[in-house]
Amino acid sequence: MPAIYTPPLRDYRFVMHELLDVTASLQQVPAHADIDADTIDQVLEEAGKFCAEVLLPLNLSGDQEGCHFDPATHAVTVPKGFRDAYRQYRDGGWPSLSAETEFGGQGLPHLIEIAFSEMKYATNQAWTMYPSLAHGAYTAILAHGTDEQKRLYLPKIASGEWLGTMCLTESHCGTDLGMLRTKAEPLDRETDAGPGDARYALTGNKIFISAGEHDMADNIVHLVLARLPDAPAGSKGISLFVVPKFLPVGAGQDATVGERNPIFCGAIEHKMGIHGNATCQLNLDGAIGWMVGQPNKGLAAMFVMMNGARLGVGVQGLGLTEIAYQNAAAYAKDRIQGRSLSGPKSPDRQADAIIVHPDVRKMLLTARAYAEGGRAFATWVALQSDLLRHPDEAVRQDADDMMALMTPVVKAFMTDNGFSAASGCLQVFGGHGYIAEWGVEQMVRDARINMIYEGTNTIQALDLLGRKILSDNGAKMKKFGRMVQAFVAAESGNDAMKEFTEPLADIGDKVTKLTMELGMKAFQSPDEVGGAAVDFLRVVGHMIYAYFWARMAKVALDKQGDGDPFYRAKLATARFYFAKLLPETASAIRTARAGSKVLMELEAELF
Amino acid sequence: MPAIYTPPLRDYRFVMHELLDVTASLQQVPAHADIDADTIDQVLEEAGKFCAEVLLPLNLSGDQEGCHFDPATHAVTVPKGFRDAYRQYRDGGWPSLSAETEFGGQGLPHLIEIAFSEMKYATNQAWTMYPSLAHGAYTAILAHGTDEQKRLYLPKIASGEWLGTMCLTESHCGTDLGMLRTKAEPLDRETDAGPGDARYALTGNKIFISAGEHDMADNIVHLVLARLPDAPAGSKGISLFVVPKFLPVGAGQDATVGERNPIFCGAIEHKMGIHGNATCQLNLDGAIGWMVGQPNKGLAAMFVMMNGARLGVGVQGLGLTEIAYQNAAAYAKDRIQGRSLSGPKSPDRQADAIIVHPDVRKMLLTARAYAEGGRAFATWVALQSDLLRHPDEAVRQDADDMMALMTPVVKAFMTDNGFSAASGCLQVFGGHGYIAEWGVEQMVRDARINMIYEGTNTIQALDLLGRKILSDNGAKMKKFGRMVQAFVAAESGNDAMKEFTEPLADIGDKVTKLTMELGMKAFQSPDEVGGAAVDFLRVVGHMIYAYFWARMAKVALDKQGDGDPFYRAKLATARFYFAKLLPETASAIRTARAGSKVLMELEAELF
Repeated sequence: MPAIYTPPLRDYRFVMHELLDVTASLQQVPAHADIDADTIDQVLEEAGKFCAEVLLPLNLSGDQEGCHFDPATHAVTVPKGFRDAYRQYRDGGWPSLSAETEFGGQGLPHLIEIAFSEMKYATNQAWTMYPSLAHGAYTAILAHGTDEQKRLYLPKIASGEWLGTMCLTESHCGTDLGMLRTKAEPLDRETDAGPGDARYALTGNKIFISAGEHDMADNIVHLVLARLPDAPAGSKGISLFVVPKFLPVGAGQDATVGERNPIFCGAIEHKMGIHGNATCQLNLDGAIGWMVGQPNKGLAAMFVMMNGARLGVGVQGLGLTEIAYQNAAAYAKDRIQGRSLSGPKSPDRQADAIIVHPDVRKMLLTARAYAEGGRAFATWVALQSDLLRHPDEAVRQDADDMMALMTPVVKAFMTDNGFSAASGCLQVFGGHGYIAEWGVEQMVRDARINMIYEGTNTIQALDLLGRKILSDNGAKMKKFGRMVQAFVAAESGNDAMKEFTEPLADIGDKVTKLTMELGMKAFQSPDEVGGAAVDFLRVVGHMIYAYFWARMAKVALDKQGDGDPFYRAKLATARFYFAKLLPETASAIRTARAGSKVLMELEAELF
Repeated sequence: MPAIYTPPLRDYRFVMHELLDVTASLQQVPAHADIDADTIDQVLEEAGKFCAEVLLPLNLSGDQEGCHFDPATHAVTVPKGFRDAYRQYRDGGWPSLSAETEFGGQGLPHLIEIAFSEMKYATNQAWTMYPSLAHGAYTAILAHGTDEQKRLYLPKIASGEWLGTMCLTESHCGTDLGMLRTKAEPLDRETDAGPGDARYALTGNKIFISAGEHDMADNIVHLVLARLPDAPAGSKGISLFVVPKFLPVGAGQDATVGERNPIFCGAIEHKMGIHGNATCQLNLDGAIGWMVGQPNKGLAAMFVMMNGARLGVGVQGLGLTEIAYQNAAAYAKDRIQGRSLSGPKSPDRQADAIIVHPDVRKMLLTARAYAEGGRAFATWVALQSDLLRHPDEAVRQDADDMMALMTPVVKAFMTDNGFSAASGCLQVFGGHGYIAEWGVEQMVRDARINMIYEGTNTIQALDLLGRKILSDNGAKMKKFGRMVQAFVAAESGNDAMKEFTEPLADIGDKVTKLTMELGMKAFQSPDEVGGAAVDFLRVVGHMIYAYFWARMAKVALDKQGDGDPFYRAKLATARFYFAKLLPETASAIRTARAGSKVLMELEAELF
């Protein structure tokens, strides 16, 4: 049975309009002054159609066929149908959705892009990585490129004619990019236009380059980290370069592709999942590149791209959670097997559907609560990214703080949940879940990479606890905490909300106490941060989800009189979340507090 | 880099001799009166060599090649090297290890077999399933076959000439075998020798038959569940049959294979993992079979095989936990990347090995603590299976009770841990973990099936809470509880043991209270059992591991003066277990107590 997918449009309308009233916020941003709910809904409806009708049918076949590499020509061929789907994507104008109008984009809010991403990743993560990486390249050039670089590359990426990559990892360095060895030798003197004006010759070997080579677009705009000849050692000696697969001829929308640049694929990896996306070893043999941003400031410039990518990866986890849920729920309603423990529910049939079983429901509701909670959270974070262009500086600062604080949580919490939820949904299928044709085992395999790339989830946890919280004495965290407190205070007279606001207030207090305790311990030893960070992130993630679930419960309580079963389901899922998922914090707080001595005392050679 | 494996012989000597003193117990069983520690150690040393040298090198290649099916001939070909490895296995006499001497076996204790299984599953789960299923067929025929069936089949299986399967599942029924449709029509009148004497013609379709067809042995002894023409509906109308691939000619060790029996493979499944094992659709088209056991008592007879298989599956989880740990630990000691949070540990190198990072150690120690705790537990359970032949009936009864109680825990707890630990070990590798060549992603994929087959882990949890505990008012559970209490009492004067015995006593009390609470709730609604069972099993599993970890800590404390770092590592791992893994119970108890209302209230159509 092929996998099914219904775009979660109703839930997006709920989150965007009923929960967050995003249009009211967006309209304050001059670029989005004219946005309205209908526009958002219509775009998402069309977007959802594309995902369900074009991307989903290629997901299983793409996994089974994988990519092809020809060592003689260095060419990579994508799975059957991928090129054609990309042509439809371009023809539909989808690459330009949130791109700037001055570069040929439609200038729509990022939150529409993020919602579209969820649906694309749900239906075909491997395919979606091709345009997503181009979107990342667009972001980096937009933020740090010269005017000429922008005029050349941005319209080509916005139109979808050219795709892109980020080339960071080398075989000996992934997390620790300070060790990278790829060299960039200047070929020209800089002119007055700045460093982006001069050509460099790049030489080195990159690995794990997603979408690093393929036959889907006319050109591939590689963004490559490399060292200048006189660069300082470590991470302060890294610069960012744009290295197109084919050297551009001309500029702007009229540019065409010229000579092949010597950045060649040497091999593609055989991996656990995302088979339809080519994970390439790229060899640069004097490839021509132009600097993006300032010399030796490449890591910072790359982080613009990386932060966007981290949000995107979190949304990959969200998308897979949703589609795994939908398929497992459909199976559980259809598959008859055994009887309800409390007596037959379909006495006229040979057995009851397995959805009568409490533990099957628990696995389903786990995925559902993580999907709907994650959707509310991710949309709110996406809204912050649009508010970075708000005219009021205070609003911009708040949005920036929330983006910084939440990026590691989106990335790590949503991808951990995505993998475990997809695995739980596989379990609902019993033995059939292990068989490729049902599609759910692929979801589990695809979901596994999201916990690793764009910074492992451990790195996210260290970023959250060390850099985003302890280093500013919890200032950003307190900002979020004040929103939580305000909500709890506003509902203090609402008895119907107590079942949600009490545990929310409780987890808020516990996070505060735990943060203070870990802050003290950090003075004793930084290993105390390292040993507690992953558990701490789980606790913070749950505090955030508890907040959004409480807010969603409030809307559902207010509207359930309508008789729309949507609100009844929302409320039931909220109750499930508080009863069965939030309690994970009881363990995570204990283990976070248990310290790092038990981790560090054993000598390395005894492992 | 190919996966590495060092057989855990030192840890087996610790568990068998220092912790459990298995020889003292075994020697009370007449069949094992002469067993000694050296014999056990020598057999395991040879067994470990076979696993590391013959099975491990075929694990990755078997996964990548998979099995081949020829629809024209219905033939299945196993991956390259599998046949030859099996020939070496036969030539080494390994199939007969624990088989009865009267049927050509070596009559060694089951606990040696279980320890060997761990090493086989660690190094090649897909390959090992072929002989393991034959071992299951042996067990079922031994327990329920006629004398003639035993004389015919058991020597052939013990010698390894013939392999076997268990054919239960049909496409519409897996968990609910009561719905199965395969028919068995009598061809002969029974003689005085009983029902096993007459031939039946079996017709139907089976799916998910592991090792269902292959070219590794001269014959395949299928044990098939089917219905007699006049059988009652449901699970009380199922009988068990032996259906050999080739009809045997002659009897005993001299039997040869004759005519091909029409039980043909129709297809093999494409699945997430265990690619080297053929998962077959088998079509029976009037295949000749002989009844094993009594008419309509097939499920009970099959359960002999199933219970053994469930222990085996738990040990699959254990084996994968161990090998994933070994490979991740080696990688973490070798891979340099970044610096320790507390300052450089290898200032002479460009970076520190990643084992300096607390969270890397946490992932490693999680796998290690589950592997070593699981090894102690599984070996103790295996010892109980040997004590079923003890001359003292009270000892036999205790052993039988412990086997019944522990089987679902071994199966579910050890396979859940196996999957999560393997996934954690993959994470230690970062991006390299996702790449096939390192071998660890295969371990994760292989480990995923163990949570499903031989009864899903939800079924195990229902079996534990409903059948094994509540239905006898916790009598078996109390037997185990008395062992725990006795140990705690014996150590009450030992201050050095307090850090272990206090949390052990605490979790013991909590299990008792939780069991009573769930017992009360079960009267309200059986769904309360269904909604809490999985969490309950996690809590019970931890109580058991806490017991074995406390006992191991005691031995290590007593012997650490020796200066052998083995005991220091054991103690450190024990401390890690109590600080970082046992606290999972804090959440699991909360969610178990949160009841099933939040699971059951949402109407099925709103999922």
